[in-house]
Amino acid sequence: MEESRDLAIGLDLGGTKIHAALITRDGEILGEFTCQTSTNESDTSANIIYAVNRVLSETAVERNRIKGIGVATAGVIDTERNIIKFANNLGLENFPIGAILEENFQLPVRLANDANAAAIGEWMWGAGKGKQNVIYITVSTGIGSGIISNGNLITGLKDSAGEFGHISIYHDGIVCECGNRGCLEKYASGTAINIRANELLKNGETSSLLSIVNNGAVVMNTDIATAAREGDPFSLRLLEEAGEHLGTGVISLIHLFNTEVIVFGGGVMNMSEFILPSIKKTVLKYGMENLVNEVEIKKSVLGIHAGVIGASSLFFLNETNKEASSMLQRTNI
Amino acid sequence: MEESRDLAIGLDLGGTKIHAALITRDGEILGEFTCQTSTNESDTSANIIYAVNRVLSETAVERNRIKGIGVATAGVIDTERNIIKFANNLGLENFPIGAILEENFQLPVRLANDANAAAIGEWMWGAGKGKQNVIYITVSTGIGSGIISNGNLITGLKDSAGEFGHISIYHDGIVCECGNRGCLEKYASGTAINIRANELLKNGETSSLLSIVNNGAVVMNTDIATAAREGDPFSLRLLEEAGEHLGTGVISLIHLFNTEVIVFGGGVMNMSEFILPSIKKTVLKYGMENLVNEVEIKKSVLGIHAGVIGASSLFFLNETNKEASSMLQRTNI
Repeated sequence: MEESRDLAIGLDLGGTKIHAALITRDGEILGEFTCQTSTNESDTSANIIYAVNRVLSETAVERNRIKGIGVATAGVIDTERNIIKFANNLGLENFPIGAILEENFQLPVRLANDANAAAIGEWMWGAGKGKQNVIYITVSTGIGSGIISNGNLITGLKDSAGEFGHISIYHDGIVCECGNRGCLEKYASGTAINIRANELLKNGETSSLLSIVNNGAVVMNTDIATAAREGDPFSLRLLEEAGEHLGTGVISLIHLFNTEVIVFGGGVMNMSEFILPSIKKTVLKYGMENLVNEVEIKKSVLGIHAGVIGASSLFFLNETNKEASSMLQRTNI
Repeated sequence: MEESRDLAIGLDLGGTKIHAALITRDGEILGEFTCQTSTNESDTSANIIYAVNRVLSETAVERNRIKGIGVATAGVIDTERNIIKFANNLGLENFPIGAILEENFQLPVRLANDANAAAIGEWMWGAGKGKQNVIYITVSTGIGSGIISNGNLITGLKDSAGEFGHISIYHDGIVCECGNRGCLEKYASGTAINIRANELLKNGETSSLLSIVNNGAVVMNTDIATAAREGDPFSLRLLEEAGEHLGTGVISLIHLFNTEVIVFGGGVMNMSEFILPSIKKTVLKYGMENLVNEVEIKKSVLGIHAGVIGASSLFFLNETNKEASSMLQRTNI
């Protein structure tokens, strides 16, 4: 019986790691396995099958308890055909991940992009639990988002909604690879922070980071984090400015979505103690009072598990509605 | 029987006019009446009752064919309590429009803000008919929007979503009355166009409009429209720039919503022959190719009727779903 299927597999295909987990309908992880990402199709295919098999064998649950395999993936996806259309850093093009997993495991497969999966995870079991308007923002090399509005995931026409990194915060700003000008991503992503740090240091800014530059090396974001923790004013200002730019973008989201919770994840949030306060300060200072006062801004609760938990949740998403509707049918019999 | 109720009243409470109409479930107007808006509660109360009564008496349909009264209104609303919380230009505060109409007409009342109502109207019966992702943007004294995403109206936590005029297109731009900086509204609303025109003319720009300024008068937007139609380069550039700023905002919407149709309405669209081409050009030039290529950008089809049609549609919105669900019930009986 369908009702007895209380588990789903979550598979997170990221830029550096493949992460598989068996997860209950309540978002509890029963077992998980992680391996490195490869950059060609046949290795990726072998790796995902291996990862799912490992989780299945280690948890040893009855197969008929599993509803399906939810996949969170980087790149551009087609959720109708269940394929990954492009994922540059994974070396994938028109990769039939749905067919591969279905053939190997005889389970239905559902696909979501990584930011959307994380948004669903945080919404159902993390920082946005119990709310109907939740936006998940990932800040790493780039900036992306997954948007839940009035209890629905915003996907748009072709699953390409949520490109928060590519809203313009400077009408005539820096030209972005996407073609747009002034994209938020050019001012506040991990890449942007890093480029700006090295540029300013080259131009003679005073900072404890200069010792790195003077040795002919490039400053990394981990260096900036360390320097900020040691009180380096230059690094602190850099991260504060990134937070201010993110804050401007977040205000636009709040004004467009009248949202309740904004959750931040991604690698740059390893420096969240410097960036989050700056985001919050900016939002409170410049956002519409009646709207921003309703909003909680916080760090991801699920962390690296947001992807697998969100992906598995794809199988339990509208369960309440479905149960209500089957109740209705039963009542009428 | 509920199924026989094939009509609804649409009431549009605008800054200058009250507009009432009796409308079929197919968006056809059977009769309408318009009067001036007043700026106090008792007059407004009397006017809306009079307007609805006029429409009812002139169309003379059977009362039991009418599902309810849908209201599109300016200001901040509370759709749970069916009240207008504030509407400055109508002089209203905590105005119980729902109770007033229910008492007088014994019909259920539903409320939407004006941009949302127009969005619903254009989506169901206008420029966005048949699509699932439609954004209506009104450009007049201010800028607002109503957003339909995946077939749902985005309302957010407290019906305050869609504040498109208050997304920032300049991180450190002009300070707005809302508290934010660089709000789109400060660069591309009718008010902004007008302020900028008069400022530039005062600072010695060459234009056929100078004759007005030299007579000690203030240039109005209708003057700018006339001058633009006569080929005045200053006026043409002014409207082109407004379109470029709107284009930057529209790109952010497309990147966030992966939308299909963007519909422009509002008074400034009386100059749409100058502004729309500039918006389209900007969007095609700077937006993500795969996303902007899917989008139609056009002028409102319903025009001044968007509000009443959208408001009446509030009673027929999820009819297809409801019919499907009642089908389901009937099958099971």
